[in-house]
Amino acid sequence: MRIRNKPWASDFIAQNPQYIIPNPEELKGNWHKLFGNDNPIHIEVGTGKGSFITGMAKANPHINYIGIELFESVIVKALERVIELGAPNVKLLQVNAADLLNYFAPSEIGQVYLNFSDPWPKKRHEKRRLTYKGFLDIYKEILIDNGEIHFKTDNRGLFEFSLLSFNEYGLKLNYISLDLHKSNFEGNIMTEYEKKFSEMGQPIYRCEVQFV
Amino acid sequence: MRIRNKPWASDFIAQNPQYIIPNPEELKGNWHKLFGNDNPIHIEVGTGKGSFITGMAKANPHINYIGIELFESVIVKALERVIELGAPNVKLLQVNAADLLNYFAPSEIGQVYLNFSDPWPKKRHEKRRLTYKGFLDIYKEILIDNGEIHFKTDNRGLFEFSLLSFNEYGLKLNYISLDLHKSNFEGNIMTEYEKKFSEMGQPIYRCEVQFV
Ligand SMILES: C[S@@+](CC[C@H](N)C(=O)[O-])C[C@H]1O[C@@H](n2cnc3c(N)ncnc32)[C@H](O)[C@@H]1O
Ligand SMILES: C[S@@+](CC[C@H](N)C(=O)[O-])C[C@H]1O[C@@H](n2cnc3c(N)ncnc32)[C@H](O)[C@@H]1O
Repeated sequence: MRIRNKPWASDFIAQNPQYIIPNPEELKGNWHKLFGNDNPIHIEVGTGKGSFITGMAKANPHINYIGIELFESVIVKALERVIELGAPNVKLLQVNAADLLNYFAPSEIGQVYLNFSDPWPKKRHEKRRLTYKGFLDIYKEILIDNGEIHFKTDNRGLFEFSLLSFNEYGLKLNYISLDLHKSNFEGNIMTEYEKKFSEMGQPIYRCEVQFV
Repeated sequence: MRIRNKPWASDFIAQNPQYIIPNPEELKGNWHKLFGNDNPIHIEVGTGKGSFITGMAKANPHINYIGIELFESVIVKALERVIELGAPNVKLLQVNAADLLNYFAPSEIGQVYLNFSDPWPKKRHEKRRLTYKGFLDIYKEILIDNGEIHFKTDNRGLFEFSLLSFNEYGLKLNYISLDLHKSNFEGNIMTEYEKKFSEMGQPIYRCEVQFV
């Protein structure tokens, strides 16, 4: 994702604290209060420009969604989509996935989505992959018992690595497709990267794994 | 694999008992004696026309190989290849994979290869897939402790099913490639189906799983 210089981005974010949460540490353990209901809270880590999280929020009004994205220049695009949707069940969080334990209490999250996460193809960068053991430890902590990770990518190397990592961690594999757009999976919501890569004819890999 | 009428096949098989074992029940627990050494014994289940098993036997003289194939009309082609190779470390067995416990004692086998197994795409036929739980029970019984299954296929549905089945069974995933011929896997020996489908541009899926 290219990082453009967006001087107005900080202002735009600051003006929309109801959508991009300004003090997320204070919400740790209290996200249900913010949403005003006890519906499950699903997070997407590395939300990008927000097509997926807003599409999911629209399709599933009884689930609360939080899109987590590190970069200001990217999350502002998601913010535009969230504002346009104007739904009460989707929020954004501009933080690093490595710090999620600062923002979520144990068992606060119902499900984790990872979509087209950065592949970090070099072996020496494998710890940065969002499906590396270190990140699985974090997801496990904030997820409910038997919580699931739903993961999509076009990147073969990352998907292969992730299947090994999930298996090594003892996760249960509940679903797998090695060509999502040719499968009979229903209700798929596309991400920005998914649109781009599937139009180029690349297969999209998808799996669901569960902490057991 | 098409079944052609080969009236000469039975004769040809009967004339080569040193390569296609005629009374395999009697060898149960005694295969090492037949090979005349204590080298590991690896089997390929559904060997087809034998390109893989003869290629492996040639490349690895210190491993013994047994190619298992149900159909006479197919195994005669493998027999021709085995005769041509003339190596002491490869034998053929014309039996049904479902009956392997009749022919092998517990822990007699070092490794199982499954290559381009029949996909049986209909749900009601899933028990026939060579990676179904029932077959895993059989492989586990005849394999040494920590024994592995090495599996290749072009068939997406079968590979997806197999990954789920392996995971459900608690097998450890040691290796996975979702496009073998574009990976850096070394020493690959092609099967007949592999040649055909890779020439058509289809990705070849491969994994190694281990009983732990
Ligand atoms: C390749 S993009 C995919 C975006 C979107 N999910 C999609 O499918 O189109 C990966 C995104 O993850 C974000 N990201 C990467 N590492 C992150 C981290 N540690 N914490 C939060 N976001 C991260 C990147 O900034 C980028 O926007
Ligand atoms: C699709 S072919 C693949 C042959 C070869 N492995 C290859 O990759 O070219 C599958 C083979 O498995 C054999 N086969 C299927 N079920 C079997 C069983 N239960 N026991 C033994 N062989 C079987 C079939 O007869 C067929 O020759």
